Amino acid sequence: MNLLIVNGPNLNLLGTREPQMYGNRTFTDYLDELKGLFLGITIDYYQSNVEGELINALQRSTHDGIILNAGGYTHTSVAIRDCIAAIGIPVVEVHISNLAKRESFRHDSLITAVCAGSVMGFGIEGYQLAVQSFSNKR
Amino acid sequence: MNLLIVNGPNLNLLGTREPQMYGNRTFTDYLDELKGLFLGITIDYYQSNVEGELINALQRSTHDGIILNAGGYTHTSVAIRDCIAAIGIPVVEVHISNLAKRESFRHDSLITAVCAGSVMGFGIEGYQLAVQSFSNKR
Amino acid sequence: MNLLIVNGPNLNLLGTREPQMYGNRTFTDYLDELKGLFLGITIDYYQSNVEGELINALQRSTHDGIILNAGGYTHTSVAIRDCIAAIGIPVVEVHISNLAKRESFRHDSLITAVCAGSVMGFGIEGYQLAVQSFSNKR
Amino acid sequence: MNLLIVNGPNLNLLGTREPQMYGNRTFTDYLDELKGLFLGITIDYYQSNVEGELINALQRSTHDGIILNAGGYTHTSVAIRDCIAAIGIPVVEVHISNLAKRESFRHDSLITAVCAGSVMGFGIEGYQLAVQSFSNKR
Amino acid sequence: MNLLIVNGPNLNLLGTREPQMYGNRTFTDYLDELKGLFLGITIDYYQSNVEGELINALQRSTHDGIILNAGGYTHTSVAIRDCIAAIGIPVVEVHISNLAKRESFRHDSLITAVCAGSVMGFGIEGYQLAVQSFSNKR
Amino acid sequence: MNLLIVNGPNLNLLGTREPQMYGNRTFTDYLDELKGLFLGITIDYYQSNVEGELINALQRSTHDGIILNAGGYTHTSVAIRDCIAAIGIPVVEVHISNLAKRESFRHDSLITAVCAGSVMGFGIEGYQLAVQSFSNKR
Amino acid sequence: MNLLIVNGPNLNLLGTREPQMYGNRTFTDYLDELKGLFLGITIDYYQSNVEGELINALQRSTHDGIILNAGGYTHTSVAIRDCIAAIGIPVVEVHISNLAKRESFRHDSLITAVCAGSVMGFGIEGYQLAVQSFSNKR
Amino acid sequence: MNLLIVNGPNLNLLGTREPQMYGNRTFTDYLDELKGLFLGITIDYYQSNVEGELINALQRSTHDGIILNAGGYTHTSVAIRDCIAAIGIPVVEVHISNLAKRESFRHDSLITAVCAGSVMGFGIEGYQLAVQSFSNKR
Amino acid sequence: MNLLIVNGPNLNLLGTREPQMYGNRTFTDYLDELKGLFLGITIDYYQSNVEGELINALQRSTHDGIILNAGGYTHTSVAIRDCIAAIGIPVVEVHISNLAKRESFRHDSLITAVCAGSVMGFGIEGYQLAVQSFSNKR
Amino acid sequence: MNLLIVNGPNLNLLGTREPQMYGNRTFTDYLDELKGLFLGITIDYYQSNVEGELINALQRSTHDGIILNAGGYTHTSVAIRDCIAAIGIPVVEVHISNLAKRESFRHDSLITAVCAGSVMGFGIEGYQLAVQSFSNKR
Amino acid sequence: MNLLIVNGPNLNLLGTREPQMYGNRTFTDYLDELKGLFLGITIDYYQSNVEGELINALQRSTHDGIILNAGGYTHTSVAIRDCIAAIGIPVVEVHISNLAKRESFRHDSLITAVCAGSVMGFGIEGYQLAVQSFSNKR
Amino acid sequence: MNLLIVNGPNLNLLGTREPQMYGNRTFTDYLDELKGLFLGITIDYYQSNVEGELINALQRSTHDGIILNAGGYTHTSVAIRDCIAAIGIPVVEVHISNLAKRESFRHDSLITAVCAGSVMGFGIEGYQLAVQSFSNKR
Repeated sequence: MNLLIVNGPNLNLLGTREPQMYGNRTFTDYLDELKGLFLGITIDYYQSNVEGELINALQRSTHDGIILNAGGYTHTSVAIRDCIAAIGIPVVEVHISNLAKRESFRHDSLITAVCAGSVMGFGIEGYQLAVQSFSNKR
Repeated sequence: MNLLIVNGPNLNLLGTREPQMYGNRTFTDYLDELKGLFLGITIDYYQSNVEGELINALQRSTHDGIILNAGGYTHTSVAIRDCIAAIGIPVVEVHISNLAKRESFRHDSLITAVCAGSVMGFGIEGYQLAVQSFSNKR
Repeated sequence: MNLLIVNGPNLNLLGTREPQMYGNRTFTDYLDELKGLFLGITIDYYQSNVEGELINALQRSTHDGIILNAGGYTHTSVAIRDCIAAIGIPVVEVHISNLAKRESFRHDSLITAVCAGSVMGFGIEGYQLAVQSFSNKR
Repeated sequence: MNLLIVNGPNLNLLGTREPQMYGNRTFTDYLDELKGLFLGITIDYYQSNVEGELINALQRSTHDGIILNAGGYTHTSVAIRDCIAAIGIPVVEVHISNLAKRESFRHDSLITAVCAGSVMGFGIEGYQLAVQSFSNKR
Repeated sequence: MNLLIVNGPNLNLLGTREPQMYGNRTFTDYLDELKGLFLGITIDYYQSNVEGELINALQRSTHDGIILNAGGYTHTSVAIRDCIAAIGIPVVEVHISNLAKRESFRHDSLITAVCAGSVMGFGIEGYQLAVQSFSNKR
Repeated sequence: MNLLIVNGPNLNLLGTREPQMYGNRTFTDYLDELKGLFLGITIDYYQSNVEGELINALQRSTHDGIILNAGGYTHTSVAIRDCIAAIGIPVVEVHISNLAKRESFRHDSLITAVCAGSVMGFGIEGYQLAVQSFSNKR
Repeated sequence: MNLLIVNGPNLNLLGTREPQMYGNRTFTDYLDELKGLFLGITIDYYQSNVEGELINALQRSTHDGIILNAGGYTHTSVAIRDCIAAIGIPVVEVHISNLAKRESFRHDSLITAVCAGSVMGFGIEGYQLAVQSFSNKR
Repeated sequence: MNLLIVNGPNLNLLGTREPQMYGNRTFTDYLDELKGLFLGITIDYYQSNVEGELINALQRSTHDGIILNAGGYTHTSVAIRDCIAAIGIPVVEVHISNLAKRESFRHDSLITAVCAGSVMGFGIEGYQLAVQSFSNKR
Repeated sequence: MNLLIVNGPNLNLLGTREPQMYGNRTFTDYLDELKGLFLGITIDYYQSNVEGELINALQRSTHDGIILNAGGYTHTSVAIRDCIAAIGIPVVEVHISNLAKRESFRHDSLITAVCAGSVMGFGIEGYQLAVQSFSNKR
Repeated sequence: MNLLIVNGPNLNLLGTREPQMYGNRTFTDYLDELKGLFLGITIDYYQSNVEGELINALQRSTHDGIILNAGGYTHTSVAIRDCIAAIGIPVVEVHISNLAKRESFRHDSLITAVCAGSVMGFGIEGYQLAVQSFSNKR
Repeated sequence: MNLLIVNGPNLNLLGTREPQMYGNRTFTDYLDELKGLFLGITIDYYQSNVEGELINALQRSTHDGIILNAGGYTHTSVAIRDCIAAIGIPVVEVHISNLAKRESFRHDSLITAVCAGSVMGFGIEGYQLAVQSFSNKR
Repeated sequence: MNLLIVNGPNLNLLGTREPQMYGNRTFTDYLDELKGLFLGITIDYYQSNVEGELINALQRSTHDGIILNAGGYTHTSVAIRDCIAAIGIPVVEVHISNLAKRESFRHDSLITAVCAGSVMGFGIEGYQLAVQSFSNKR
């Protein structure tokens, strides 16, 4: 089984900015740990701040599953939604923080309705739950 | 570690009604399987169709964590929200179906904002992810 | 043919309070009269002020049809809606008063969309029309 | 007792178009059957696709009661509402389909609030219930 | 100077129905009185319950001014609005009752914005004010 | 018969500013002309930019009728509305421009519902129509 | 192939009123030109200002396709929408002006969702595009 | 004079949870103190987390007045509203915290409109004011 | 302890206008009675119809507490809200009528959220409850 | 005459994904066919998933006309709208599917109001109509 | 060049109340400093808590420019907006705090659309920027 | 002190397109002039039409302050908002035109709430005010 984790805008800053919101581990550090937990699964990683590049990455993917944290594009991108609906690979949505506790414009996700599942509010550990959701199905 | 799973209205029908939406396993069958996957964790279970009885169960709990599927009360119960905020035990919200794919009145949850995390759309396996979220923190 | 009439909150007060809105006959008196009109049909009756007990009653039912006046829960209960959708027995909705003449929060029903039919504004005689709707199908 | 059934736009197509929504009996066939069920009641019939002609028919009526299916004008016609309020004859509203299951612009009726009662979702048999509602009052 | 008064749906009932709302004089009686007050002005009159016939009348007009009470179409007719904007004759809008005191769907007029002026709430005397508004300009 | 004309904020600028919107006659000049047209009627005049002073003037009035152009307070003043409802003198509302042609926040008037009538869009001549509405009733 | 062009309210004024919005050619002149461009296609034409007569025309049609400019009824007529859905002939919607540039109440069309396609903003040439859309399919 | 105090969901936790919001006195302790302040008044007490049981308690009451803190049901219960309107005993609404300072879904109360009066934001002392409001009327 | 009662627009009419809504006692008469009930408390009084003068009075105050009935400004005055937030003296809001029973624009108060407490619907006796709320804290 | 066709996000997948929605021809295949139909017109083509690159392409264009299918950016891109308004080349908007039949967030286009015309719902043939709209003007 | 600074309600409290929001310098102190920075410019100052007095001051002004902080009236005063539009002197709007960070009712300004420019969130230094905006134009 | 000016989509067209809205100076010309006015401040410049590239530029910045005109992304980009909140450098928002005078979708900015200040409506000179705001703080 091979999976692709796709992180959207500003998630490259994880661990260096706003630790009170997102914790203080960089995603690269966390990724190594995550791979160690799921030895039989290949996990690729892609991050971009550009909405269209995220779409390009999703279109190129030939993985068994995708884990997507679309960051701020979660609430505004019909284009990413259309891409997920088109590619035919199951996508699990992850959010590090609990969006329901934040500003009202973060309460609606354009993306959830086309995802296979959604995980939110568990901090960076949410990615582990998302990988487990694929792992459980093997 | 001991956990309490609380299921709200109509979840006692799981496995017997609307299998195309919720699958065809009863929750009791599933619960046995779940306990087998997490041998070091005690998992108690409570179900009621009565909103106030769900509140009573949450108030009585002395568990390390609670997994709550409030069913239809998710979208209408300020009282359950207040209870979760009051009891001081971390609550993880689970929904079997992907609510974002369903009627618009199911898109808003009154409960998410006071929960420690939320898992949605993975079918009945969502409960396993919720248990894992507690298990990962040990 | 056997039917179940389920009345929701405050309908136990029929005939004793607010006669200008709901008339001055008690439902028990009316029920006797109703049974007399449909001799070949068994009509059971259940009333509760507790939302979850109404759900319990609907789940327990093995009748050929249900006539439901959910009272104030009509406008707020996703849980009763889910129950009706799950049980697979045709439910006819009755309202004694014409809800469209009253406060705007009474104009939307969460329940109608999952019912087989809806009857509103005929006073207590609406129950007779609901029974007739089942009777006509025999 | 004499009654007038008034059908609005497109109801002249009943039985010939969209049978999955409205059944496959023409209204004329059904009307004969209906008259047979209520031998002591005279039932007149009028249909028009023109909003103003429906108003003319309602204004001309000297019947004991009117049964009105205003079709698409149900949701848009303040003029028909004003007419019903003005003429002083009790009007019972009928809809063949369950409007609450359809597009959101069909969920609000401008007409219900000025009607004596409303019947919805029983298919073409709803007219029979409407006639019965008048018949019960004799 | 010649003027056309155009009355919309249900205004043919003036003086015979709902006197508590609209008074008890028929419009024909009132029209004679009105003509007597403005001897130098020719006043033609047209009434219809059909939206499109009102448009036909407005399009045919070659008067110096039009006084329009569109009745219930005031709130729903983009078509009448478009007609007024197209014909190039000044139109003064009259309403007998004070719409701001009535249901909220009567608070918005689609027509006012294309009219030369609007008079509301003076009872049937509002037509006199409308004629005077043209008379004052001579 | 004695009347009071009350003009609200910025109406003291009439005739000196924004002539394309409000014409180029000062209200004082117009008032003299108006008095000349209605010789048997005493017409008093008050203008203030202060909302509370308008209320004071309305409360002090012992006239047979009041003509009020509340200017910008039309859309925001619950206090003026309450005053009109309290004083028991018929108030006719006048607006010089056609508010329906302007910004959407000018489409709702808090005041109309408590007025005896409303005149809008006739330019400064609207005051003459308002006086006539009282004059017609003598 | 035979087509029917149906024009709604005020489109009989084309070429004579509001040329800055709709151009200065009458529809009859244009129709001759249009027929000359599509010699193998029979094009019938119907115009009415009456909503219900438009419905009558649509119901009577036995053409291969219909081109409909419903004018002001585009935004208000559930009845025309229902008719299009019922008749089973492909309907292409045309608007001469770009509705998105005009008042907000013109931004929503009740009719588009039941049409085979929609063409807007090309001036009177939009009808030619609509005919071509049928012609391309031959 | 005898009064009934009815407390809704989670108010049994008063004094033990969220002291920063609700203070740290239990309601039982406070109730003794309250009774001491009003020696000539009998004060009964009922608390439940179940919406329908609150309705049952209100229906059973034969007191001179009721003091109701419906907790989270304040914002969602049409059924409790209907009960208050039906029973004919004056009900005074109390809220410990200032709801206007909290989440927007707490700003609307379904219950206030059927109550004799409302007291909010005074902490637990609000119950004393409510008792005084009845006491003042003796 | 010294308190200031501040009454807003139209409350100077108390006892003389609209007795069915506000009772028939003048506030001055009531104030004497109120002072007699709280002999140890100095109660000053200020009333104005001018929003800015109410702000001036609040800013000048050096009392231990303020009781404010802002009348119609309750629903529209951000400026009074800002003043209360700035002055650092506890303000208790009073409304004589039950605003929730009246027009929807009276259901939202801009002021409540910055007040120490709110009392509504008890008639003129509400001021006594407000004084008692300060008195209880001594 | 030379034209530029600009396709936005996910339109590179045409013919390979979701054929039930968008058909099974690739856009490159279709483009060859399209060029064959309009031999005297040069048609350039650009596609990108990146919103800003679409803007770059529009800014670089020196064509006589542009045909734009902005895909998901249609509903969210103020930036593309501003670009179209700025460049001074007529842009015709094309949508393959009938957006009015799909989710409500697809019903509003930010782009239509600045386009010369709009074509929707004709499948991939809509591009041909758009080219014809330019061709007709030569 | 001569300028007028107009401050609205509660800005006379600057430097004495809520320093965490507005700083702790009085406006008079700041004004002296400001005059020192712009020696060639005459700066007059006016403050009032009364909406109508602010309008009076704006109407009286014969300055080259006005700097206006309307305080709480920013969000509610159509009357001040009308005044700015009428007087023909450029007005620059200043807000000390960042209104977008505060309550939602502070996010809309009725005044900005008629101002020459707007400066917000720079603390009391915003007035200096506003003066500079006039100074730059000399 | 070193500052970065970041311009978003279509601002590269300044001075060449829509001069009636944005003036006719190119930003490069203006930038030279601006640098001449602030000799002690280093001003870097970046422009892109790509939302994600703007985020990249903001993340890379090590300046003392940033001046941002996000153009059309102002109203739609949660991602840019998140970036500003994350980077810890004060950002001043500039808009050349007065957005409050334009379409309603331009009235809300997602970005203002995370900026240190906002300047709008002063034309291209707004950038000078923004630089001055930083300069004043030295």
